[in-house]
Amino acid sequence: MAKPKKDVKFQHRGSNASRRRASTSFSDMSESVSEPGSPIRNGALLKPEALPISDYEKKKQTFITRTIWTLVMIAGFFASMFAGHIYMIIVVTAVQIISFKEVIAIANLRSRERSLRFTKTLSWYFLGITMYYLYGESVIYYFKHIVLIDRVLLPFATHHRFISFMLYVIGFVFFVGTLQKGQYRFQFTQFAWTHMALCLIVVQAHFIMNNIFEGMIWFFLPVSLVITNDIFAYLCGITFGRTQLIKLSPKKTVEGFVGAWIFTIVFGIILTNIMMRYSYFICPVNDLGSNFWTGLQCKPNPVFNPVKHSLPFTLPAWTHIPTTYTFAPLQLHVLVLATFASLVAPFGGFFASGLKRTFNIKDFGDSIPGHGGMTDRMDCQFIMGFFAYMYYSSFIATYHASVGSVLEQAITGLSAMEQMEVVKGLSKHLVNQGVIADKVLEYLGDVQLKRR
Amino acid sequence: MAKPKKDVKFQHRGSNASRRRASTSFSDMSESVSEPGSPIRNGALLKPEALPISDYEKKKQTFITRTIWTLVMIAGFFASMFAGHIYMIIVVTAVQIISFKEVIAIANLRSRERSLRFTKTLSWYFLGITMYYLYGESVIYYFKHIVLIDRVLLPFATHHRFISFMLYVIGFVFFVGTLQKGQYRFQFTQFAWTHMALCLIVVQAHFIMNNIFEGMIWFFLPVSLVITNDIFAYLCGITFGRTQLIKLSPKKTVEGFVGAWIFTIVFGIILTNIMMRYSYFICPVNDLGSNFWTGLQCKPNPVFNPVKHSLPFTLPAWTHIPTTYTFAPLQLHVLVLATFASLVAPFGGFFASGLKRTFNIKDFGDSIPGHGGMTDRMDCQFIMGFFAYMYYSSFIATYHASVGSVLEQAITGLSAMEQMEVVKGLSKHLVNQGVIADKVLEYLGDVQLKRR
Repeated sequence: MAKPKKDVKFQHRGSNASRRRASTSFSDMSESVSEPGSPIRNGALLKPEALPISDYEKKKQTFITRTIWTLVMIAGFFASMFAGHIYMIIVVTAVQIISFKEVIAIANLRSRERSLRFTKTLSWYFLGITMYYLYGESVIYYFKHIVLIDRVLLPFATHHRFISFMLYVIGFVFFVGTLQKGQYRFQFTQFAWTHMALCLIVVQAHFIMNNIFEGMIWFFLPVSLVITNDIFAYLCGITFGRTQLIKLSPKKTVEGFVGAWIFTIVFGIILTNIMMRYSYFICPVNDLGSNFWTGLQCKPNPVFNPVKHSLPFTLPAWTHIPTTYTFAPLQLHVLVLATFASLVAPFGGFFASGLKRTFNIKDFGDSIPGHGGMTDRMDCQFIMGFFAYMYYSSFIATYHASVGSVLEQAITGLSAMEQMEVVKGLSKHLVNQGVIADKVLEYLGDVQLKRR
Repeated sequence: MAKPKKDVKFQHRGSNASRRRASTSFSDMSESVSEPGSPIRNGALLKPEALPISDYEKKKQTFITRTIWTLVMIAGFFASMFAGHIYMIIVVTAVQIISFKEVIAIANLRSRERSLRFTKTLSWYFLGITMYYLYGESVIYYFKHIVLIDRVLLPFATHHRFISFMLYVIGFVFFVGTLQKGQYRFQFTQFAWTHMALCLIVVQAHFIMNNIFEGMIWFFLPVSLVITNDIFAYLCGITFGRTQLIKLSPKKTVEGFVGAWIFTIVFGIILTNIMMRYSYFICPVNDLGSNFWTGLQCKPNPVFNPVKHSLPFTLPAWTHIPTTYTFAPLQLHVLVLATFASLVAPFGGFFASGLKRTFNIKDFGDSIPGHGGMTDRMDCQFIMGFFAYMYYSSFIATYHASVGSVLEQAITGLSAMEQMEVVKGLSKHLVNQGVIADKVLEYLGDVQLKRR
C-alpha cells in the first residue's frame, strides 16, 4: 500500500519548494490549470519560486506529518491484511475510489461555473456501474455455489452482463441528452477522461481484487515487490547513479534501475520463502470469515511444492558444491514477477508523471496528509497487479476440472456422435503431446458407430 | 450496411453548401480544426458561406454519385451476406478499420509537423493488438474443437490473454518512452483518443462479429431494424414532424421518433417471419464454407419454434375473433430489439453528431464517395449490434455443451492420465449404449502412457 521510500526521495529532491503544499484542493488546482497564464496560487504547481523564511520549520513539520502518516498507512495495511480478505478488499476499494476522484478532478475544470451540474454526477454514475459490473463478475465467479442456488440472486447472476450494459446505456443516453451547445468540447473531454480513468484505475483494481481472492500471496507479493524496487531504485540511484534513464523523471538513473532489479529479485525469493509456509497466504478464499490466525484450508497449488532439481553436469568431488537443489516452482516464477516490477512497472509511474506535467500539477491531490495524492502512491501498483493476475491465471492457476465433471458434461450434453468426437479429439491431443502411441488414432479412425 | 435514407435527408437539408465537399482529406480537416480562427478551407466545415454559380450542376453530380454508391453498397452487402459468414466478417472488419482510421484522424493534429513520427504508428499498433485479442477470443470460443487440438495453435489459445496483455504492455512502455517534452498534452490526448476509438468502434464491432457467428439473423435483424428506423424517422418526420426532439440535431422531431418506432416494429415482425424459414439465417456457424444456397444444419434454437398462445378470456362466438394464436417467441423478442433500435440507437447518432460539432467538422471523412465518412453511416449500428449481442446472450442463447467446450475443459483442466480416463470412460459409456463395438475397450485397456 504505502510506498515508504518515496518519502525519502521527496526529501532528497532538490527544490525546497516541493514540500510546500498546505491545503491544495482539487478545485484550486484545476483553476490554476485552466488559466495557464495565471500567477502561482499554491504549491501544487511544478516550479514555485522563492520560499518564506520559516522554511526550516515547515520542512520539519512536513517531515513529521509524512513520517506519522507513513507509519499509519503501514500499520493499517498490515492490520487489514491479517484481519481477513474482506478487509483488504475494502482497503483496495477505498484506494480505487479516491484515485478515481483525483483523476477525474484533473479534467473537471470549473464545471459548476459552467452550470453543468450533471457532469460530475455522471462520472460517479459511470464509476458506480463499472464497479457493479466488475464486482458482480468476481462474486459470480468465486461464489457460484452460493449465488446460483439463491432464488433472489440467480436472475442477477444469469443476466449480470445485460443489466450492467443497460445501466451503462442509461448513462450514455443521459450524457447525450444533456449535451449543451457551446460546451461540447468540455463535455466530451470529461466523458473521454472518465472512461480513461475507469480503464486505468477501476479495471486494473478489479484484477488486484481477484488476486486477493486467489490467495493473499498473489496480492501481497506484487505489492511488496513494487515497494522494494522503489526503495532500492532510490538507494542504488544515490549510491551509483550516473546515467539518466528517462527525460520525464530526471532523478531516475540506469544504475538505480538495474541495481534495484537485482535487489528486488533477492527480496522476492526471501519473501516467497516465508509466505509459502502459511496457508493463509497460499490458499484461495474459500471462507470469507477467516483471518491470519484461523488460517485457511486447501490442497496447495503445486507451484508451492518443493521439487528436486539436479545440475545438468557433474562437478569434481573436491568442490563440495551440492549437485541437487530443492525449491518450489514459485521461486522461478518470482524471478518473472520481480523483473516486471523492476523493469516495466516503473513505466506506470512515468506515465503518471507525464500526466501530471501535462496538467502542470505536482501531485494528483492531497488525500494523504504529507504525501500528496493517492494516485501518486499507487501509480505503479495498478499495472503490476494487473500483470500479476494475467501471469497467475495464464501460468500458475490450476483449473480443477474433474474427470467426473467432464464426463458428466459429455454424457448429458452431447449426442453419441459428438461423444465419439471427444474421444477422438482427446486421443489426438494425447498423441500430439507424446503421451500415447499414435496407433490409437488409426484404430479409433476405423471405429464405426452402430447408431447415432 | 448502407443507410439509404440519409442520402435523402442530406438532399433535404436546408444549406446548399452541405453538398460541397470534393476532396477533403483528413489532414486538411484537422488543420482547419487546429486553427479555429482560420478561414474556411474546404467544404467539410459546418457553415460554409456562399456557393459558386454552378450549384445546380454540382447538386446533380453529387446526387448521381450518391445514388450509384448507395446501390453499390447495398449490392455488396447482400452479396457478402449470401456468399457466407466469412465474407460478412471481412466486410465488418473493413468497416471497423475505416471507422477507426477516421476517428483517430480527428485528433491527429499535424503530428508530422510536430516531428512525432510514432504517434500514428502507435495508434495502429493498439488497433492491431486489440483486434488480435478480440478476434482471438472469438476464434477460441467458436472454434475450440479446431484450435485446441492443433499443436501450433494450442499455446496461443491457452495463453491468449497473457500474450495480448504483454503486447499491450509493450505498446504502453513504448508510448511512455517516446513522450517528448512540450508535446505531453498532444501525446496524451492522442493516447486517450485512441483508447476511446478502440472502445467505441473495435469492441462494439467485436460483438457484431459474434452476432454473425451466432447466426446470420442476429446480425442482419439489428442492422436492418436500424436502417428501417432511419428511413421511417425521416418519412414520418417530414409528414407529421412538428416538435423538435433534441437540440443537437434540429431536423429530428418527436413525431418522426415515435412514428418510426411503430413502423420498425411492424417491419421487424415481417422480416423475422421471412428469415426464420431459412436455416442459413437461424443456425450458428458450424461450417465456414457454407453459403445461402448450401444452407446450414442445426437443431434450431427453441426461440424459432412456433408456440400456441390462447387469449386469457373467451369471446362471444359472433365476434369470429380467433382465440388462439401461434407464433414463435422470437416475434416477442423482436419487439424489444425494434424498440431499442428506435428509441436508444439514435443516441449513438446524436453522440457522433456532438463529436462532429466539437471538432467543427461535417463528416468523419470521405471514405464513401458522395456519402461522407464510414463512421457517419455506422454511428447507430455499433451500439445496436452490441445491444443485440447482450440481449441474445442473456435471454435467447441456449448453451448446449459442445464438443469444443468439453475438450477445452479436459485439455486445460486435467492431467494426461485423467484425460486418458476420460477417453476410456466415455468409450465405455458408448459401448454400454451399444453405439460402438466393445473391442475398443480391449484396445484402449492396453494403451500405455509413455509419461504423465
